[in-house]
Amino acid sequence: MKLKRVVIAGIGFGGLSAARTLAGKRLDVVMVDRHNYHLFQPLLYQVATAGLEQESIAYPVRALARNWKNTKFRLCEVTGADFKEKLLLTDSGAIEYDYLVFAAGSRTNFFGNSSVERHAFDLKQMSDSEALRNHVLTVFEKASLVSDNNERSKLLTFVIVGGGPTGVEFAGALRELIIYVLSRDYPEISMSETRIILIEASSAILTAMPEMLRNYALKRLQGMGIEVMLNTPVTGADENSVTLGDGKVIATKTLFWSAGVAASELAGKIGVSQGPGGRVKVLPDLSIEGLPDVFVAGDMACVIQDGRPLPMMAPVASQQGKYVADAILARERGEKTEPFRYIDKGSMATIGRSSAVATTHGFSFSGYLAWLAWLLLHLYYLIGFRNRILVMMNWAYYYFFYERQVRLITDTRKETVKGADKV
Amino acid sequence: MKLKRVVIAGIGFGGLSAARTLAGKRLDVVMVDRHNYHLFQPLLYQVATAGLEQESIAYPVRALARNWKNTKFRLCEVTGADFKEKLLLTDSGAIEYDYLVFAAGSRTNFFGNSSVERHAFDLKQMSDSEALRNHVLTVFEKASLVSDNNERSKLLTFVIVGGGPTGVEFAGALRELIIYVLSRDYPEISMSETRIILIEASSAILTAMPEMLRNYALKRLQGMGIEVMLNTPVTGADENSVTLGDGKVIATKTLFWSAGVAASELAGKIGVSQGPGGRVKVLPDLSIEGLPDVFVAGDMACVIQDGRPLPMMAPVASQQGKYVADAILARERGEKTEPFRYIDKGSMATIGRSSAVATTHGFSFSGYLAWLAWLLLHLYYLIGFRNRILVMMNWAYYYFFYERQVRLITDTRKETVKGADKV
Repeated sequence: MKLKRVVIAGIGFGGLSAARTLAGKRLDVVMVDRHNYHLFQPLLYQVATAGLEQESIAYPVRALARNWKNTKFRLCEVTGADFKEKLLLTDSGAIEYDYLVFAAGSRTNFFGNSSVERHAFDLKQMSDSEALRNHVLTVFEKASLVSDNNERSKLLTFVIVGGGPTGVEFAGALRELIIYVLSRDYPEISMSETRIILIEASSAILTAMPEMLRNYALKRLQGMGIEVMLNTPVTGADENSVTLGDGKVIATKTLFWSAGVAASELAGKIGVSQGPGGRVKVLPDLSIEGLPDVFVAGDMACVIQDGRPLPMMAPVASQQGKYVADAILARERGEKTEPFRYIDKGSMATIGRSSAVATTHGFSFSGYLAWLAWLLLHLYYLIGFRNRILVMMNWAYYYFFYERQVRLITDTRKETVKGADKV
Repeated sequence: MKLKRVVIAGIGFGGLSAARTLAGKRLDVVMVDRHNYHLFQPLLYQVATAGLEQESIAYPVRALARNWKNTKFRLCEVTGADFKEKLLLTDSGAIEYDYLVFAAGSRTNFFGNSSVERHAFDLKQMSDSEALRNHVLTVFEKASLVSDNNERSKLLTFVIVGGGPTGVEFAGALRELIIYVLSRDYPEISMSETRIILIEASSAILTAMPEMLRNYALKRLQGMGIEVMLNTPVTGADENSVTLGDGKVIATKTLFWSAGVAASELAGKIGVSQGPGGRVKVLPDLSIEGLPDVFVAGDMACVIQDGRPLPMMAPVASQQGKYVADAILARERGEKTEPFRYIDKGSMATIGRSSAVATTHGFSFSGYLAWLAWLLLHLYYLIGFRNRILVMMNWAYYYFFYERQVRLITDTRKETVKGADKV
């Protein structure tokens, strides 16, 4: 008997959790992604701040597939879907499905501000983190050669927009990179010449956290020498500056944007109804209205719970991926499924050495304990024994020796590499 | 009193060994390189075969400089020299010197064959190894989607030109990657469809080794399923094939070239006399005739010893770097220097698991013992405690679990990354 086929488009947290649940369950599972690895996005900021090798937060999908029965991988770009013929369309041909799971995640939302989009760094892809690390180290190299004070100041000013976990974690990690590591690398530069400015449009950072933790985080950041500007929208950017809502201009060569996310472009290519942020509207069982065999999981899905859309974060995606897999299995057994409901186990953000904030089941933690919990949970959710060891080793090395060794400016002009166009 | 300044152009094995010797010796040392790291080139082939992260074989030059007294680093591209004014010219301005050491290494020599140059991969830069790894994994992904036998065979045929240590080591590592790792990753592909062809123009591989070891290596390679073609020149290449001297054509998407090296382009930009391979002609003390304050060390220098030019390899470069530094120190003390003489401590090449060849002081080893010696020596010469641990861990992991986890196809279109043009 031919097995029914589930095609999963996107192997982030949602797709991975769906695939893991479906593996070996008398279904043919096809995982599709444009990268051949699952990327642990929450640690991208540590790659960008020279703390981790990019390889240590990626895991080859085929290494998963080969241990999972009836599970295959296909490297390709999804271009659309033909729901009538039950085909997922890709740049390497169509793939038949019986069930289809969209889990293509999200991209950075620049809210239509094209000058910001053109000039800002963000952190979604592995290559983003390498590009940002290269950039940070390159501005230090340039500054070490420049004597003009304005130029130096522009090179050594870092503007971070968005006071969510990514903005806060990147700001803290960048500050520590500068004061503990780069200060010793660049005797030509006084660390008092460097500025990190964290800009948030609303009145608080980490708005998803209880007020006590927001205040703790704000004080910690300020205590580390980071300038935090609240109630400050960013309206534009060019090569040498960032413009604020009140017309003020900050001279800088570095704008990092983490002020918003929107659903993957794919959401707009499949001809279905989209909600805020371009996310696909779904029924309570995460299927698309009129398409009972097509599900959406993770950032791509717009799920309203208790009157608010669920946040675009890894735990939501993981729970949805598992739910969708279970819903498919239930359907196969001829059973009904309860509507999806996200169980909030809490959230956390790390600020710096021995310093983090965490909230779970109504309890709030900050400081060393929260930091330790952050470390352990992130290690736990990383995939692969080897990656865990590698990351742990990097963290221990940094913790004890105040040293981040991946401060390499790697060649970014890869397109000139010979043979690159051969395949 | 102002210290006299030694400028070292290039921080490969030659430049590094010169800098290390000069550090803290009452001289101002300026290290110059176009990369901000020292690269351990002998292990590039392991990055290309998914065995090591590229970061683990690179070490930031500033991490060295900050521990060495009076030693600075400057990231820039050397464009030439003004010997009259005693200036090293770079893309970020001129640098005054009292002593100048050229140690810019070598590049791949395609012997003027432009079709090969256009289509071949080589291994000199860090980005080369990443590009080659991406390519190898990509042809497997493509082959898994293709049913046409000719196309599959073209994708799964790997042509390696050059039977020196790099060609032999890459061939062995690629073969093991395929049979131990990719065979489990790609159930769609039978490993009997893959071909690795090692092509050598002369009548033997590893010509620098004693005959016994050459024979051992040849048998081992053949035993692993690698086709070795001796006395076979390569005359051309295009996107889909490699042409041999006798007119035969091999259909392939992968040509790896390690059949020759030539001095860095810099050797031709400084207006001095060049020998074979573009290497700079030097006096017995490694200075340039008529320029007693300018030295050349490593692959860039053409040193004839016992009637033959010294090979372009790390031990020669290291000994020359140290010699040049000592010669400068002697000059400063008003002492004379003996002519440079390379002390050959032997050479080695690894073929595969528990299998290598090594020769030292007239003794030849092969098999497990040579392999163990190879491992230990390479670990010893790697820079940085952390890199050693990382590499050792990767090797152990592969040895025990037959697993190479860095089989990631990383994004090579980095030029599209936002902000990349900002600095």
